[in-house]
Amino acid sequence: MSDTDHLAHLSPREIPAAVTASLRSYFEERKVESLDIDPVCTSVIDSLETFVLNGGKRVRPAFAWQGWLGAGGAEGTFAAPEDPQRVLRAVSSLELIQACALIHDDIIDDADTRRGAPTIHKTYERLHAENHWRGTASRYGISTAILTGDVALAWADDMLHSSGLSPEAVSRALVPWRAMRTEVLGGQLLDITAEASRDGRVETAQKINRYKTAAYTTERPLHIGAAIAGAPESIISAYRSFGRDIGVAFQLRDDQLGVFGDPEVTGKPAGDDLREGKRTVLVGTALEIFQQSAPDKARFIEENLGNVTSVEDIDQLRDLIEQSGAADEVEREIDRLSQRAFEALRTADIPEDNRENLIDMGVRATARQS
Amino acid sequence: MSDTDHLAHLSPREIPAAVTASLRSYFEERKVESLDIDPVCTSVIDSLETFVLNGGKRVRPAFAWQGWLGAGGAEGTFAAPEDPQRVLRAVSSLELIQACALIHDDIIDDADTRRGAPTIHKTYERLHAENHWRGTASRYGISTAILTGDVALAWADDMLHSSGLSPEAVSRALVPWRAMRTEVLGGQLLDITAEASRDGRVETAQKINRYKTAAYTTERPLHIGAAIAGAPESIISAYRSFGRDIGVAFQLRDDQLGVFGDPEVTGKPAGDDLREGKRTVLVGTALEIFQQSAPDKARFIEENLGNVTSVEDIDQLRDLIEQSGAADEVEREIDRLSQRAFEALRTADIPEDNRENLIDMGVRATARQS
Repeated sequence: MSDTDHLAHLSPREIPAAVTASLRSYFEERKVESLDIDPVCTSVIDSLETFVLNGGKRVRPAFAWQGWLGAGGAEGTFAAPEDPQRVLRAVSSLELIQACALIHDDIIDDADTRRGAPTIHKTYERLHAENHWRGTASRYGISTAILTGDVALAWADDMLHSSGLSPEAVSRALVPWRAMRTEVLGGQLLDITAEASRDGRVETAQKINRYKTAAYTTERPLHIGAAIAGAPESIISAYRSFGRDIGVAFQLRDDQLGVFGDPEVTGKPAGDDLREGKRTVLVGTALEIFQQSAPDKARFIEENLGNVTSVEDIDQLRDLIEQSGAADEVEREIDRLSQRAFEALRTADIPEDNRENLIDMGVRATARQS
Repeated sequence: MSDTDHLAHLSPREIPAAVTASLRSYFEERKVESLDIDPVCTSVIDSLETFVLNGGKRVRPAFAWQGWLGAGGAEGTFAAPEDPQRVLRAVSSLELIQACALIHDDIIDDADTRRGAPTIHKTYERLHAENHWRGTASRYGISTAILTGDVALAWADDMLHSSGLSPEAVSRALVPWRAMRTEVLGGQLLDITAEASRDGRVETAQKINRYKTAAYTTERPLHIGAAIAGAPESIISAYRSFGRDIGVAFQLRDDQLGVFGDPEVTGKPAGDDLREGKRTVLVGTALEIFQQSAPDKARFIEENLGNVTSVEDIDQLRDLIEQSGAADEVEREIDRLSQRAFEALRTADIPEDNRENLIDMGVRATARQS
């Protein structure tokens, strides 16, 4: 029995701190390489470390961990058991992919803050401006953030491959790992292109939810955990169904909160998505309903989405979406997806406490207020 | 004997085409995933494929291949032999890292063309403009190119790990693979920061040459090839010394051509580096010499570097650098590094034809006119 076996008995609430500890020790190990290069690199790696350690709910590692536990990973039900500490390290690497995704997304969205602090590109833009350096501060900020995200993406792979898992377990995990990275980048490409090309089809928004959110946040993390445990196809398939539906429902909840959420609870301005002009399933559904029943209202939404700033205009747009019945329809869809997700777990051959943990995580993801 | 053993007998001149074929078949396999997501993603993957297949001298895979051959990889001198086709695939993945590096660099440098075609961000900027899409065309171009580079970086790892090499060989190759990615990104971070902060020290320029160019272009690729072959430390160390010196000499030659190169031969405008304000070892050496002997001339270079556009001004700056004696000094340094590089090979326990191939590649890299 390894002295890290106690990890297998951590409660879901204890996972985030364990993930953070794993990430911290990974940075400790690798920081020395940047010191060999130059202090400039060390300071960038320090920024990345702060970004990775200080934020995030560790949702992806938590799902991967449950996927591993539920497939009997700790007992070695389907494959030679792996040291829990190494599994933790392997699934924690998902947070480095997430760091790359967020840092690069923040450039794309030109976001000022993230996790309550300035975004990476804004941090370096400010450094440039304060030092009166040569060239454009915003360009330097973006350039540094592109490279910082690249480091995070490369290190994510490195962390997985140096986790200490057996080559067999890594090789099994690589199947969903590979698919996931392409899916999230593909979903993100589709997202920015749909927004640019005014593609407001519900079908497109659903695809974005499927690939950019569900595959990346729940479906593939569960799949990765199950693959490390050597789970049979029946369990993987149940996890994937659950993860896909819960992930999409999670995003639909996010869309509802982006329009109807209480700013005091969400911490974001009211109607933020309407201001940004996001073409969500919610908005697409409202448009489709009105295109049939009230074309002038559909046109009004089309023209104002992404062009509203005053509270009154945002209120008017929000009321119209509510009036269309789209919000009710999305609420029913969240319910339907959640029920189907839980049903997929009900028949899966996984331990009862794992099923309960996952249902609990699913409920928290889809019924939240913020 | 595998039916791909003939690959081990390819001449160095035949390697680039074999690398391209390997990359083509990799894209064939993976393209289907993007089709599953959306045609928007397929079109981005197509752009990436065109970029990867149409360009490049395949320098990095060629060095890695020689590293493998010279360490008896084909015969299995130091470790169980690997199928040459799989080795070729593993080393070809270096071209996907290079694709990411170039696509992201072109955003950083705001470059219009690459390999005779519009850069990726300019391609998508134009697509946006031509379709009169919503938002800013340049922002859409940059966003798409960031994500395209990310796909290339993720796929580089995937291609290495799905090359079919034995887990032992992959695990050996991962040591230099990991170091290389951090080194090239670190070197690039140092480069943009040195340029912004006007850090013109020769020492800094040397570090950039070491990490951004030499480690990434020659030293680590050779190391990766040798690691696949399970080479002993003595051979790895000889390869690394050779690769480091030849890589730095290669960059010094590049710097010379960037100031003194004949536009008819290089295909770049005369004195391109002076226009861009690159703080190379050449420029740094000229500055150091003049700071001692003629401070006004040093000041003149400082003030005009990166601020010259007319042919006359560029000529004046070029003449001053020549007059300083820096060009001669750099020429001597190229010679010294090349000799030391060849010397490192001379005593290494590698086959004679491999030594000759590497010396030939080294001479071509450092004595070139374009």
